[in-house]
Formats: sequence, structure tokens, C-alpha cells
Amino acid sequence: MTTTATAPHATLDTVETVPSFVMDSWWTPEAGAAGATPVRDASTGEILAKVSTEGLDLAAVVDYGRTTGQDELGKLTFHQRALKLKELAQYLNARREHFYNFSFQTGATKIDSMVDIDGGIGVLFTFGSKGRRELPNSQVVVDGPMEVLSKDGSFAGEHIYTRIPGVAVQINAFNFPVWGMLEKFAPAFISGVPTIVKPATPTGYVAAAVVKAIVESNILPKGSLQLVSGSVRGLLDVLDYRDLVAFTGSASTAKSLKAHPNVVEGGVRFTSETDSLNAAILGPDGVEGTPEFEAFVKSVVTEMTVKAGQKCTAIRRAIVPQELVPAVSAAVGKRITERVVLGDPRGEGVTMGALASVEQLEDVRAAVQSMLDAGGELAFGTLDSPSVTSADGTTGVVDGGAFMAPVVLNWDNPEAEAIHSLEAFGPVSSVIGYKDLADAVRLAARGGGSLVASVCTNDPDVARELVTGIAAHHGRVLVLNREDARTSTGHGSPVPHLVHGGPGRAGGGEELGGIRSVMHHMQRTAIQGSPNMLTAVTGVWHAGSDRNFTVETEGTHPFRKHLSTLRIGDAVRSELRQVTLEDITAFANSTGDTFYAHTNQEAAEANPFFPGIVAHGYLLLSWGAGLFVEPAPGPVLANYGLENLRFITPVAAGDSIRVTLTAKKITPRETDEYGEVAWDAVLTNQDDEIVATYDVLTLVEK
Amino acid sequence: MTTTATAPHATLDTVETVPSFVMDSWWTPEAGAAGATPVRDASTGEILAKVSTEGLDLAAVVDYGRTTGQDELGKLTFHQRALKLKELAQYLNARREHFYNFSFQTGATKIDSMVDIDGGIGVLFTFGSKGRRELPNSQVVVDGPMEVLSKDGSFAGEHIYTRIPGVAVQINAFNFPVWGMLEKFAPAFISGVPTIVKPATPTGYVAAAVVKAIVESNILPKGSLQLVSGSVRGLLDVLDYRDLVAFTGSASTAKSLKAHPNVVEGGVRFTSETDSLNAAILGPDGVEGTPEFEAFVKSVVTEMTVKAGQKCTAIRRAIVPQELVPAVSAAVGKRITERVVLGDPRGEGVTMGALASVEQLEDVRAAVQSMLDAGGELAFGTLDSPSVTSADGTTGVVDGGAFMAPVVLNWDNPEAEAIHSLEAFGPVSSVIGYKDLADAVRLAARGGGSLVASVCTNDPDVARELVTGIAAHHGRVLVLNREDARTSTGHGSPVPHLVHGGPGRAGGGEELGGIRSVMHHMQRTAIQGSPNMLTAVTGVWHAGSDRNFTVETEGTHPFRKHLSTLRIGDAVRSELRQVTLEDITAFANSTGDTFYAHTNQEAAEANPFFPGIVAHGYLLLSWGAGLFVEPAPGPVLANYGLENLRFITPVAAGDSIRVTLTAKKITPRETDEYGEVAWDAVLTNQDDEIVATYDVLTLVEK
Repeated sequence: MTTTATAPHATLDTVETVPSFVMDSWWTPEAGAAGATPVRDASTGEILAKVSTEGLDLAAVVDYGRTTGQDELGKLTFHQRALKLKELAQYLNARREHFYNFSFQTGATKIDSMVDIDGGIGVLFTFGSKGRRELPNSQVVVDGPMEVLSKDGSFAGEHIYTRIPGVAVQINAFNFPVWGMLEKFAPAFISGVPTIVKPATPTGYVAAAVVKAIVESNILPKGSLQLVSGSVRGLLDVLDYRDLVAFTGSASTAKSLKAHPNVVEGGVRFTSETDSLNAAILGPDGVEGTPEFEAFVKSVVTEMTVKAGQKCTAIRRAIVPQELVPAVSAAVGKRITERVVLGDPRGEGVTMGALASVEQLEDVRAAVQSMLDAGGELAFGTLDSPSVTSADGTTGVVDGGAFMAPVVLNWDNPEAEAIHSLEAFGPVSSVIGYKDLADAVRLAARGGGSLVASVCTNDPDVARELVTGIAAHHGRVLVLNREDARTSTGHGSPVPHLVHGGPGRAGGGEELGGIRSVMHHMQRTAIQGSPNMLTAVTGVWHAGSDRNFTVETEGTHPFRKHLSTLRIGDAVRSELRQVTLEDITAFANSTGDTFYAHTNQEAAEANPFFPGIVAHGYLLLSWGAGLFVEPAPGPVLANYGLENLRFITPVAAGDSIRVTLTAKKITPRETDEYGEVAWDAVLTNQDDEIVATYDVLTLVEK
Repeated sequence: MTTTATAPHATLDTVETVPSFVMDSWWTPEAGAAGATPVRDASTGEILAKVSTEGLDLAAVVDYGRTTGQDELGKLTFHQRALKLKELAQYLNARREHFYNFSFQTGATKIDSMVDIDGGIGVLFTFGSKGRRELPNSQVVVDGPMEVLSKDGSFAGEHIYTRIPGVAVQINAFNFPVWGMLEKFAPAFISGVPTIVKPATPTGYVAAAVVKAIVESNILPKGSLQLVSGSVRGLLDVLDYRDLVAFTGSASTAKSLKAHPNVVEGGVRFTSETDSLNAAILGPDGVEGTPEFEAFVKSVVTEMTVKAGQKCTAIRRAIVPQELVPAVSAAVGKRITERVVLGDPRGEGVTMGALASVEQLEDVRAAVQSMLDAGGELAFGTLDSPSVTSADGTTGVVDGGAFMAPVVLNWDNPEAEAIHSLEAFGPVSSVIGYKDLADAVRLAARGGGSLVASVCTNDPDVARELVTGIAAHHGRVLVLNREDARTSTGHGSPVPHLVHGGPGRAGGGEELGGIRSVMHHMQRTAIQGSPNMLTAVTGVWHAGSDRNFTVETEGTHPFRKHLSTLRIGDAVRSELRQVTLEDITAFANSTGDTFYAHTNQEAAEANPFFPGIVAHGYLLLSWGAGLFVEPAPGPVLANYGLENLRFITPVAAGDSIRVTLTAKKITPRETDEYGEVAWDAVLTNQDDEIVATYDVLTLVEK
């Protein structure tokens, strides 16, 4: 692939084909240029390469993922997969400059390219970390607590997630060829589901360059990533309910895919992210001179110009107090004039690049013209071809370059349908006015479901009313104020920790969102059975399951067992220890916790929950530790925390307590010589009533 | 409505119309019998009533839900709605006998009717309870922890759920007119989304009888429930992304609804539950004479005969070790012969009723005939019209009665497509053999996605392999063994606590599942902002937000404030207290926790996490309580638990600690004079390093 250096007058016959990577081999069609689609440099219009999948057996590609891909990924746990993502992130991170060279040809500036490339690698890092911190080191995720379904506790239910048994197909948009690929790949990979990537033709060569590096890294198991450079017509015909399609792109393409019989009848899991008419709302307090006014204007300009406004998350509708429409429009224009230098991303000082293609440019200009026809007025900017800076530093109009100047529209009628439904996918925003907060909520909702909205206010009540009012119409809402204006990651940037997607027009899908997006690649299943069987299926010990009292059966306290020999269900039960009034009084005095329930019989009796003076909950916890501890050094290194503590039955003077501790969940670490063990702890009294339940969290050597 | 007593020779003109309840009024068409559909008694074929929606303005029905329904439900919190469900459950529970009378006419036996009616009321009770125990007493649900997104902590994100801003339309199947309605209504109602019910025509009069009682109870807010008795043609035309359609019924109807432009393009949230080819797998250990063999046979017979096998969850495929096919088939036949009495549910001793209609009967017979043509053999039963017990106790063949005898099929070829894709929606099951566990998994998956499967084994390894193998193809998996055979709620019964639904052929939807199903009626939205703004939007205090140190600002310790005056962010910070080696030693001696890290300097230093002897975590917790406690009686009644405890920095002798406690989450109870308050607790040392973080859970008087 030599797309970085092409002849000045390259033709479809002389340029190379962007290859596909399928069934763990590189593939290009035998047919040559027949039926191939050209790929052009966005700033110069030169042909860079061509794409074609003429003759590619897509059914075999899917089958390879479902068999080899599933098999190989199935050999790894969540943590092992996450660790591979981290290694991959490090490998790619060292090669960013190489990828930037490809990215510049798409019209992306250095900053645009960093959003795409560094952003994509950042997703790998985040999932590499979250996958190990937030998932078990196994292949089954337990969702929520066990529900006891019979009086005697012999029948119970809960939910598990297991990976879907097919492939994750991603069909991506042209604007973020790398981020778009990696943000979908990372969660699919962690879940154990093989990915098939289909990048958009205009910029797919950047994705191919990254896949080439991924293949060379030799980090991923076979079948876990396949790349199809070119048309995937017919792909949906071979998918079924085992598979997932994550689409990003236009609403019209989404519609045709979603109407496919294998989606409607066949149960293919289909999610889509389409462009949306995202809003930014300026609160009534955000008048000129406030940090909120400044942050709002800055955000609008950023969203208009980064990636030349070709972001599905860009602000298309600035909804401001109606009296502020002129001030906001003027301030946006002023900032554009002062800050934006349009040109070839390889030219010095350029801050905004070309659109992805001349076709894109024509589409955007046509959309703006329609908006003007519908009542919009040009408050700033022009539809004329702008003078731009070329790679060599010269300025002037470039024929064949997909350049467009930023445009701000005003409207006499903020209700005009075009404002709320017509998207110009470029550096274009409308500024419209609202009467009151309810009106602002209503106008934002006119978008019919959007990916993201900003709410710019420093008034907590305004924030609450606007955010809760518009939330159900949006996938993400950013509250911008003086506190976060400098540190915010910005209106237009999805972050791997939070879901990306939105209802209605935005496609109705969800991506990212940390581990939530891993779950999107898994099937949630309710399981029912005896506690012993739930333990067997999940690998997590469930209350009511058999215990193995290792002191009695093996002559060993479970705290003396290393991770390698410790088993779920290994347990220890202490003797009873009696609590006296003196113990309670001494504990009150030494800790300072002289709450009346521990010190004053009459007052304690008057409390609705206590029979009289009772032992401190923390005394019971502390004694519990004393009852289960193994004092001498051993594999248990530390008690690093505690979860789910509930005090059930009060303990009065004269009562006795004992503790039963059972190994519940064992999580060996991939990169340390120890791992986490969660122990189920139950304190009971002399009558076997439950005094308290909790989980003790420990670090234990391998 | 007089459907319980009709003239012996009723006609479409003489019977009444099952009414609709729309816009808070009862409605019947003016047109009379024109275009109406008859409704017949399943056992006798008599016309009971008719249905028609001729002239009903469905757009107005939807609009009423979106406006009045949303407004009225929006005045209530989750807890208030849940409490109303409990009241409604009690009201309906007192009227069950009345509903049974309607149910008998559908061919349902008393037990069938209890599954439907008591089961439906049970769902209301469960959600009435879960809604108050597992949701906040507000209108916004926070999903997962806050993610800090900037180094200085000024920018963060998290997820919230708010109700969808439209209506929940339920289109139900004929087999469970009451349960089907209430199991969808309960979660929608708790979420705050108004419901429009469209029952299936053959049994919709039972749903109408229950809605009549619901209306008379006067418990629900206006607009929260509407009933459309009859066709809803055109309804999807007026729905959009704000609305949800929950469909139960045939795959073909689901397909036509799912292909509607308002689903494909318009973003209507559409979930469906369709019939599926559910499997039950007998483990290799389940040989004759074992409790598992017995439980398996019992379960197959129950699923064939309850509701005359008209359950989307019924067992259609009994997958058993191939050598056990004859034994299982024979045992199933034997049990049917011994236990099943077919007839009019009003007849004495009848244990299995009619199918819902003669049309159903014809469909089921035709399906069985197709299976016989495809290679199936009748191992038990007959397609002839059976002799049955009538309501008056006489026996014989009943003309016009939709009766069918149970049928067991065997197959020479277990791969035959008809076994895995052709559903006879009546008392029909196939018994097929598998070679090994992988073969059993493969055969179960041949169903192409099912609602539920049973795995019958007492071997934990077999359970693990089968359950994790088939889970991703199923919505629910029941493990049946000697431990839960008696207490299990059964293969065919969804429970409100666990999700109901399944991938692929089963429709790809999810219902129930406790609070999960409430979330299905809400939109998940990522919110980003400063901690103060996240606090403002959610009503939950976020770390990093402002605190109000009430001792300093109001002269009052926050523990002295009742729920009515306590505010999120109210806080107290203690003085520093120094920890000495004597304190640690005394604590070790009094509690018995003599772990080497607290008692042996040399051993403690050798531990990778400790600088030397350190204070016990439980000492720090106990002191923390001593530092924040208000000893005298006051509004804080008890500390009932603790969550999310993590020890961050060890505390050595000579270090000092202080505690900062902040009101984080306030949950007043609807039915008690107190509520829950969760306090954010942070222990810090003399250098302001964080020693430990946790949440203290208390009960506080209103």
C-alpha cells in the first residue's frame, strides 16, 4: 500500500487497491480496476487509491469469525483480552506519526487527526484498564444480586451475561476512520466477539493502515479482527441473531439496513448512530460578559470548525435567550474571523481543513441553500469558494479542494422545520431564540432525538430543569459552566467512559459507556436453580451453597491457602464469643462512639430498633475480624475493603457472636503476583440468627 | 358487559361489545355490529361478545397518554407509583373469583386461571415492593458510578435514566390476558410512562373485566392506563421515538410491526416476545430411577398440559441422551395417561382445558401433521377428536369445542428442520436424542433463539457446560435437579424478578427482570459537568461538590436535622485524632485481631502494602464513628449498614485521622415516619491524604 506517495496524475489503473484483511490474510481482488471505486485526496482531489471487494466471499468471512474467531477468543478471559488491548494501544501509540501521514490526506488537520488516531488509541487504553478493573477474570458476568425464589432458599435466580455466539460487524462513517473502528472494536474484543470492520470508502485507507500495524503487532488472536475494504453488499444476507451490526453513517443507509429481513425477522442485533441536529442551550444567566457566554461561543465555534464540522456530534442549533441571538451570532462570527485559518492540513498555520470530498462539499452547500430557502439568513460566512492556504504556503482558491467557509444562520421563525430536521454536515450552525426554559426544552426536543446537547449555565436550578427536560431526547448532555469550561472534554467528543448514541433521529443506539458497551456484545440470560447450581454455572459462590470447612476437611485455614489452591466455597466458622456490657462500654470509651444506644439503657429502649443497650456495629465487625484472622504471615496480604454490610439483628450484652467466612469470588490478576478474593461473611448469634452480612475484600498471593 | 351470561343462541347482533377505556372514559363504537369480530367460548363455541374499534381516534388516544398521562404520572415519584401498584394489587386480589368466571370461558382451568390472574396480580405486588426498595424516591435514576474526566476533578460524567416522553403500547397474546397486561403495565407505570393496552380479541374480555375493576378502584392517576378492545390498525402511524411498543404474539405479526417505517426510520422502541421452540435437556446423569429423570418427565408433562400447551414458554423439544429417548417418551405418555383429564374447565376433575378457539385447534393439528410429514412419529397420543368431560360432568366428543389430546413425537433424524422450526402451539412435544454435551448444546441452539430452556442434571460440571453453552441462545435457563425440583417455579413460568424474552426467533426482547424492566421504559443519558452540576441534576451529592458545614453555618450538627430540613451536601468535619501504638495494641487485644500487620513490626514491613505496624481498618472505622457521632437521642435512629468501603492509605502509629461526613442521598419512605440517608464518609490523615472512603447508611426520622 503506497497511498502516501502517488504519481501527480495517478489514475484508477495505476493506483493500488486498499487491501482487505480476511481469514487472517491480506486480500485484493483479482479483477484489478474493474468495478473499483477511486479514493481521492480531500485537499487536492488527486486519486490516492481504489477499493473493491469484487469476488470476496463474505459468507466465508463471517464463518471464519464465528468459528476461528470465537474459538480463539474463547480461550481468553476478560482480563487477558483487556491486557492485549493495552499492549495493542502501546504498540499503536508508538506509530502515531505514521498514521497522521495518511490522515492528512483526508483533509484532517493535526488536531483533527489526533482526535481520530490518539482518540482511538485512547479508547483501547481505557478498555484495557476498565476490562481488568471492572470485570471478573473469567468469561461470565453476573448481573445483579441473586433473587431467592422459594421460601426454603433451595430455588433462586439471577442474571448472567455471556458473549453472543456470532460476529460484530461495524460499518463506519468517513469522518473518524480510526476512532470509529477502535471504539467499536475494543468492547467487542473484550466481550470475546470477533469483529469485521467495514470502513467508509473515502477514508478507509487510514483504517487499513492501522489494521496493517495491528496485524504486524501479532498481539491479537486469530480471527478476532477482519477488515473489508470496499462494498459489503450481501453481508446482511449471511448474518443472523447471533451477530451484531453497529452502523455509523447516514439515516438513509441506516434505514435500508434496518429494514433488511435478517434484522426485521432474523433477529440480527442492529444499532445505529446517525447524524443528528444537536443543540446547545445557553441559560438565561449566560449574558454577555459571563464566563458561560464565553464558553458557549467558544464551544459553538469549536464544533463548527473541528473536522470542518463533519462530526455527527457537532452543534447544529444554538438555542439562546431570544434577546441574545444577535450578540451570540456576532460573537461566533468574531471568533471565527480571529481564530480560523482554512486550508490544506499540511499548510502552516492551518486550523481548519477541507471537507472529506467534493461530493460532501456539494451536499453541504445544497443543504445550506435549502435552509436559506426555508427562511434562514446568513448571519456570518459565505457559500462562495474560500481562499485557502495550500500545503506549500500559498493562498488562493483551490480547484478540486473540498473547502468550505464556516456559516452561521439566523432565523426569524425558530419553529421552521428546516432548522430542526435539515442537517448540513459541515461548518454550519443556526442560532435561534427561546422565550423561557420550557420553550428551550421544546425546541431542543424538536430535533427528534439527538446524540448530544450542551446546557450552558451556572444556575443549578436552570441546569436541573433543562437537563431533566431534554435528557430523554438525548444520548449525552454536557453542562458547561465556569467550573468546567477549561477542563471539559467538549460538546462534540464522546468519551469511552460514557455512552455514545441517542434516541430517534440519532439512530437509537448505544456505543461506548465503559463496560456497558461490552455488555452490548453479550446476551443477558436469567438463570434459575439451586444455589449450588448457580455457583457451578457462574464460578461465584452463592449464599445457600455448600461450604468446604477446610480446617475440618484439609486441616488448613482458608487464609493459609494461596490463590492457586483456594477454591470457591472454602470456608471457616469460628467459635462463639460472648459480648458483655463491659465490652460495649470499653468500646464506647476507646472509640469515642458513645451513641446512646450503646450507653443509655432507657434511651436505647425508646429507640424503635433496639431492645436496650446494644453492641456497636463496628465492635461486631472488629470482633468478626478477630474471630476469622490468621495472625501469622501467610498468603492473605491485606483487607482492602468491604461491601454490602447490613446489620440485621441487634446484639445485646450477654449475646454471643460467631463468624462464618466463605471464599466467594476469586480474581487472580494477570500482571501481579496476587489477586482479589471476596469473602462472604456472616455474623450469627447464639441462636443462629443472622446478626450481620457483608463481603470482606482481600488481596491474596498466587 | 354481560359476557358471563349469554343467551344459548346469541348472535353478533345480540351480544354486547367489549368496551374500550380511552381518555378516561368507556367507549364503544356507534356503528353497532358492523365490522365487529365475534368472541366465542372456547369449550362450547357460543358467541360471548364482539369487539370493534370502528371510529376510534387512535391519535387522540396516544396524545392523551403523552399529555395527561405523562403530566399526571410526572407528579409522582417512583415510590409513590410503587405504592399505588401495591394498593391496586390488594384491590384486585380481593376480586379474583370474579375474574376467574371470565377466564373459564377462555378454556382455562382453575390452575390456568390462577397462573394468569394471580400471576398478574403477583407482578403488581413484586413491583410495588421492588419499586420502593430498589429505586430512589425521586424521578431520576443514577446508573453506575461517577467517572472523573479531568485531572483536577472539576469535570466528570455519569449516566442517568429518565422516563421516555411518550406512551407504552402493549399488544398482547390471547393466552394470558391478565398476566400479559399487568406484567407490562407494572414496570411502565413505575417508570412514569402511560400505558395503552391492546389485548388479543379471543380473550380480551378478561382483560377488560380487570381494567373495569382498575378504573373502579380509582387508584391510578388519569391517563396512566388506556384499553383498546379491538383492532389497533393505524396505531403505529402515530407513534415515534418517544414511544415504546411491547408486542407478544406470533413471529409473523411481529415482523410486520417491526418493518413499519416508524420503527425502521422513526425510532419507535419496539420489543417483541414471540413463540419459540424451547428445549429441555436431560443430562447424561439423569437416567431412569434418578430424581432428575422424574423431574424432567414431570416438567415435560406440565408444560404440555398447563394452558393446553398454549404457552410461548412451553417445552417443544425434549433433548435427551439418545439411549433414553424410548424411556422418556414412555414415561411422559404414562404420566399423561395417569394425570390428565381433558374437558371443560367448569367440569369436575378436569385438569386440562380446551385450546383458545377452533381456529387454534386447526392450526395446531395442521402443524402436527406437517411434523409427521417431515419424519415425526406419534409416540403417544392422537390427532382424533378426544372424548372430554363437559361442564355438566358428561363425557364425549364436543362439537365446536377446541379440544386436543396431548401428543408426543419421536424422530429418527434429530436434525430434521421441522423439529427446530415448526411450532405446534398446543399440547405437543418432540423427544429427540443427543450424542454428547456438545451435541446437546448444538441441538438446543438449532431453535434459533428461544425464550427458555431447562437443563436437568445433578452434575455441576454438566450444568456449567450446558448452561454456559446455551445461555447466549436463550432468555432464561432453568437448572432442575433434586435440590430444587419441588420448589422450582417451573420451566414455563416467567417470574417478575427475572427477565422474560429471548434472542432470535423468540423476538429479541426483554420484559420483566425486576427494575431492569422499569429501565426499559426510560432513556439512558450520559451527563457531564462539574460535580456541583451533577449534584444539581441528580439530587444526589457527588464527591467534589460543595459542602455545607452546618455546625459552622447553622450551629447544628447534621445528625440533629430531621429529613424535612436535612439537605444534600450538609456536612460535618471532625478534629484530628492521633493513633498511638498503644491504641493499636489495645485494639488487637480487645478484638482478637492480632494480624501481624498490627502486632509485628518486622513482619509488617515485609508486607508489600504496609510501612510497618499499621492501625486496623476496623479501628479506623470505629474511630470514624466516634468522631462523627452525636451521642444524645436525635433524628438519626440507627446505622444500618455500610457500602463501598476502601482503605486507601495505611495509618501508622503517630498518624492522625479525621472524618468528613456529607449527606449524599436522602430517601424518605412513603409509609414510615423515617427514611434512609446515605452519608459520604472520608477519613483523611494529618497530611490530608485519603485514608478510607465509604458510605454510611442510616435511618433518620422525618
